Amino acid sequence: MKKTKVAVLGATGMIGQRFVQLLEDHPYFEIGGLYASERSEGKSLGEVLKVKDVRFMQDTLDMKIELLEPKAVAKRCRAAFSGLPSDTAKEIESDLADAGVAVFSNAASHRMRPDVPLLIPEVNPDHLEMVRSQSTFSNGGYIVTNANCSTTGLALPLQAIYQKFGLRACYVSTYQAVSGAGYPGVPSLDILGNVVPFIKNEEEKMEEEIHKMLGKLDGNKVRYAEFEMIASCARVPVVDGHLESVVVKLGKEGSPEDVIKVMEKFKPEPQKLKLPTAPVQPIIVRREENRPQPAADALAGDPARARGMAVSIGRVRESKGYIKFWLLSHNTLRGGAGGSVLNAELAVAKKLL
Amino acid sequence: MKKTKVAVLGATGMIGQRFVQLLEDHPYFEIGGLYASERSEGKSLGEVLKVKDVRFMQDTLDMKIELLEPKAVAKRCRAAFSGLPSDTAKEIESDLADAGVAVFSNAASHRMRPDVPLLIPEVNPDHLEMVRSQSTFSNGGYIVTNANCSTTGLALPLQAIYQKFGLRACYVSTYQAVSGAGYPGVPSLDILGNVVPFIKNEEEKMEEEIHKMLGKLDGNKVRYAEFEMIASCARVPVVDGHLESVVVKLGKEGSPEDVIKVMEKFKPEPQKLKLPTAPVQPIIVRREENRPQPAADALAGDPARARGMAVSIGRVRESKGYIKFWLLSHNTLRGGAGGSVLNAELAVAKKLL
Amino acid sequence: MKKTKVAVLGATGMIGQRFVQLLEDHPYFEIGGLYASERSEGKSLGEVLKVKDVRFMQDTLDMKIELLEPKAVAKRCRAAFSGLPSDTAKEIESDLADAGVAVFSNAASHRMRPDVPLLIPEVNPDHLEMVRSQSTFSNGGYIVTNANCSTTGLALPLQAIYQKFGLRACYVSTYQAVSGAGYPGVPSLDILGNVVPFIKNEEEKMEEEIHKMLGKLDGNKVRYAEFEMIASCARVPVVDGHLESVVVKLGKEGSPEDVIKVMEKFKPEPQKLKLPTAPVQPIIVRREENRPQPAADALAGDPARARGMAVSIGRVRESKGYIKFWLLSHNTLRGGAGGSVLNAELAVAKKLL
Amino acid sequence: MKKTKVAVLGATGMIGQRFVQLLEDHPYFEIGGLYASERSEGKSLGEVLKVKDVRFMQDTLDMKIELLEPKAVAKRCRAAFSGLPSDTAKEIESDLADAGVAVFSNAASHRMRPDVPLLIPEVNPDHLEMVRSQSTFSNGGYIVTNANCSTTGLALPLQAIYQKFGLRACYVSTYQAVSGAGYPGVPSLDILGNVVPFIKNEEEKMEEEIHKMLGKLDGNKVRYAEFEMIASCARVPVVDGHLESVVVKLGKEGSPEDVIKVMEKFKPEPQKLKLPTAPVQPIIVRREENRPQPAADALAGDPARARGMAVSIGRVRESKGYIKFWLLSHNTLRGGAGGSVLNAELAVAKKLL
Repeated sequence: MKKTKVAVLGATGMIGQRFVQLLEDHPYFEIGGLYASERSEGKSLGEVLKVKDVRFMQDTLDMKIELLEPKAVAKRCRAAFSGLPSDTAKEIESDLADAGVAVFSNAASHRMRPDVPLLIPEVNPDHLEMVRSQSTFSNGGYIVTNANCSTTGLALPLQAIYQKFGLRACYVSTYQAVSGAGYPGVPSLDILGNVVPFIKNEEEKMEEEIHKMLGKLDGNKVRYAEFEMIASCARVPVVDGHLESVVVKLGKEGSPEDVIKVMEKFKPEPQKLKLPTAPVQPIIVRREENRPQPAADALAGDPARARGMAVSIGRVRESKGYIKFWLLSHNTLRGGAGGSVLNAELAVAKKLL
Repeated sequence: MKKTKVAVLGATGMIGQRFVQLLEDHPYFEIGGLYASERSEGKSLGEVLKVKDVRFMQDTLDMKIELLEPKAVAKRCRAAFSGLPSDTAKEIESDLADAGVAVFSNAASHRMRPDVPLLIPEVNPDHLEMVRSQSTFSNGGYIVTNANCSTTGLALPLQAIYQKFGLRACYVSTYQAVSGAGYPGVPSLDILGNVVPFIKNEEEKMEEEIHKMLGKLDGNKVRYAEFEMIASCARVPVVDGHLESVVVKLGKEGSPEDVIKVMEKFKPEPQKLKLPTAPVQPIIVRREENRPQPAADALAGDPARARGMAVSIGRVRESKGYIKFWLLSHNTLRGGAGGSVLNAELAVAKKLL
Repeated sequence: MKKTKVAVLGATGMIGQRFVQLLEDHPYFEIGGLYASERSEGKSLGEVLKVKDVRFMQDTLDMKIELLEPKAVAKRCRAAFSGLPSDTAKEIESDLADAGVAVFSNAASHRMRPDVPLLIPEVNPDHLEMVRSQSTFSNGGYIVTNANCSTTGLALPLQAIYQKFGLRACYVSTYQAVSGAGYPGVPSLDILGNVVPFIKNEEEKMEEEIHKMLGKLDGNKVRYAEFEMIASCARVPVVDGHLESVVVKLGKEGSPEDVIKVMEKFKPEPQKLKLPTAPVQPIIVRREENRPQPAADALAGDPARARGMAVSIGRVRESKGYIKFWLLSHNTLRGGAGGSVLNAELAVAKKLL
Repeated sequence: MKKTKVAVLGATGMIGQRFVQLLEDHPYFEIGGLYASERSEGKSLGEVLKVKDVRFMQDTLDMKIELLEPKAVAKRCRAAFSGLPSDTAKEIESDLADAGVAVFSNAASHRMRPDVPLLIPEVNPDHLEMVRSQSTFSNGGYIVTNANCSTTGLALPLQAIYQKFGLRACYVSTYQAVSGAGYPGVPSLDILGNVVPFIKNEEEKMEEEIHKMLGKLDGNKVRYAEFEMIASCARVPVVDGHLESVVVKLGKEGSPEDVIKVMEKFKPEPQKLKLPTAPVQPIIVRREENRPQPAADALAGDPARARGMAVSIGRVRESKGYIKFWLLSHNTLRGGAGGSVLNAELAVAKKLL
């Protein structure tokens, strides 16, 4: 099988470099170019390295960053993975789709567009079909987005629960890692020994995106899921891994043991299709009294290629008719670059790429 | 006015040393003795110092720790402030009350006893009267407890809201400082760059204590307040100051501005009585988009003696019929030693001491 | 006594705001204006607040930031405290001196100029006389600089030692707080759970500045002190307080007890003059086995106005003919704004202001 | 090749669990038993897990901890890896050697014994011969120790330098990770946002051990190397990886580039023998201006089995006739369990096991 050439957009940022990590030796894709703004043009990846816990191959470190110019990207690459900041992503991603490139984006710009799938292969794989209604589709260009990092981790267990029990309300408070804010991102003076109870637009994204993802595809439109979603978001002094305190009111009765069961049995399409970046067990329910924790569970997921792609759940318990649990997912892998790579793998399986 | 001699029990611990800090130069009380177990007997306070951000007077640092023997304490002190661990507190505090000592305790052991006030002077000052029904009262001995550190910070704004709007439900997730676990407490290997979503018995305490405190005194019994209280508790890498994400369903309609107003106007009995450790403004509502924060707000409260005794609130906002806000309070001052010192000051004002 | 009007330059930065803190209620000075670049023009100090551990008066928080224009500053203020970044400081400070303003600067730009005193009142008070040889002096304008934050803490004990024993070599490794890099400064992704063994130009400054400060004034030139100074500098995840590991080879024999004695007896000119920001005890030698520590000792110094101005020393010990000790000083107070305020107080005492 | 059965002593501690990690799938060894005190007897490894960044196999997590009884250990295992605390290690390790077990120990108890090798295979492989002079050797029992974690990282580059240039003095200041203190070890209240400039006996060990390791074997005695070694040790809020600031005075002239060259060419015996846990490149010299860093370099070392076994060096520079550099090594892998596993591999190669 010949590998598909893909571009990495925003290759100097945290998400961009996670894309590079996941694409270094991918069975379907090969990196056709690393792109960023003029500031980094001509530098090697090694010179602008942000991610500290990965050991890239020397060849990868030596790759040069090129200036992001949509036409030039389109000439070389069939698809693009976008780790661009939302403000610049909107236009560039549209231009790329116009030029016939399949764009898999981590940016927020196009997520809520009615014809753009907000996709998590484990949650709403059928939504991928929406790309067929995009005006650029006939030329091979389209946009697929992954969800906000905090919403992503939540969407998996919530979908498992929603399908089985229905859902009346979900109250969530987040404990988010600093890598979610990119680099340089959060100043150390703001977060050392501190918690900051504010992340711009994050609560709005969480309260909005989840209803689209758990919604039903009806023709080429999504009918949004209906339940109360109340989110409060804070930044904590952790490098990687978003922890979330979740309280749900089920639609019909279910015990903690029932909820654990549906989570553990959750084996949706990516697992059936054995997509390379899909973890064998997408939701891991831990039985220890004090897990999941960022330091121990951010990189959950097997096989090695799916490290950081499993969502860890713990302390599933009941209180006054509510189910409470904690969840943890890796914000720049499952909730970022890994999500879009998995989206592209699904597109391959669906012959859209 | 002659000062009342008081004992500090558990003077080698974090709470015990906060008691010492607040009593060093108190207008009503003077330290009659510092007490702990054999292990520290004969050492000076300076040799067993845990609290790092206080500059004690040299005379205080030179005070010797004595062996905690209830009869000896009773001989010298009219009252005792207890920073004992709950397992040893139960019996010792009972023995002290038997011996005629008024015990103001931070321990959990006696909090839910039907004849023991679980007291926050700003929240339920009338509950103090319950001590009259304790069997030891005729000898001058009784027990008054302050609430769990996380419950305390929450109780102030919740009481302000409850009195005005009623309350149907409260969903809270905590971001708790390590000083709440005492010393040595949380191992650094567990919390550096990490969050631990479990604190033993903490959620149970929060879900239980709040209903007693917001309850109505009926004769000498408390009729518990009725609303749904759902708590999830986590430890974060912060030294002092518990942050809480709060979502409430009011009993009747109220806008964020309405809620802010009742919080800012909340000027209960300790403020009217001008108790020395009562902050002039017990609830401070901040208007910045990213406050309160432990690093900036843990020590809120004026005058100087009331530093760390105000509860800071921020980001009061509305979402789908719920009111959301963040709160911060100092866990070992307002939520610990300061709470009991204020309780004792109320007892003085009520001629119970 | 009428207070002298002073400007704060760079009032939006960490050092600028420490100047404001120290000048809020100063016996000699009053703030005549807060100055910064266009970006902050017209904002109130409260809107651009960086320092988290200070409770400014509301009047101070309401002060407006004005555009830094040297002539306008000179019209209103006799002196200026500069917390400007070094790149912009050079020209602006020169312009201000030209305009007749006495500039007390924390910036590095003019420190090594042969006619500019690099001043620590406890170390080289006579160097202040050098301002008389500056070309602008006749108009009342001159520049006085404080030293680099790491050099400052070291200069006090080193001067005490140097005067008594002479000095052949000093080997120092630093553990520097993030506030030393200003705001936003060090990205949290770089320092959480990490140490960065590089601070641009810091080792060069330490190896150079110390010889000027400990040098002898000869006419209006400084003859540099001669000893080997070897510095290695690292950034650690601490907010305030630079810790330093120091090894010295004395010029003549001295035991740890001898060294402690000269440090404790070190009572130089600012203490004799009782300058308001001078700590009663400029060098505090601690006897505990594990001090000084940033969390406990950064704010050492009495009286209240001199908090953060004392240098704490610990673990003075001997090994193979070397004396080893640890020192800690507050990098933005003693090693920054506080240093320049003390310099200005000395200038008042010497009738230069 | 039949694998040798080995015991892990102190399997509930940080070092013990690193031994388990390295032995899980070792080509020479297989775990014959996990041993600890009564407190953990009968528990599974999973129940007492301390190390957070490793994903053990389920079979390993299910292994039961047994009571450490030397005779029982000897019956089952030819060798033992000891992660015991020094106070209990002394007698137990002696008893095991008496019983014919080859003990590879991380404990300090026997390190300075004249007949016990203090061994780093890259530094002093010939010292292993010393075991032949131990009284228990004829029965197959002997003790080999690895060095203190801080000394180990330093010993590699220092040996490379010493062999080429000689050495007159070495001044080192350490930035040590909390995992070096074991579990629970350092209380979070002591180290969050703080640095503690004291580690019991650490400076003494560093100043003493290095001379034995760099010494020459003369018959069955070591003639200690002679140079001045001055160490200052501090604990920083980092989980894994000891950073060290090193200044050396060479015995004869050498430029930074010369020093880099000898470090990079350092390919001693374990590399020649291709021992499984030996990193291909034992000393990695980095050219970036701000490396090595714990977060990026603690796990340096290839192949996968040797992760955490390479020592990273950076910022090799010259100042006034001294060579300065920074080094980083993983304290519980290279400086702990990995060191002893490598020692045992050398013993296999030398037919001593």
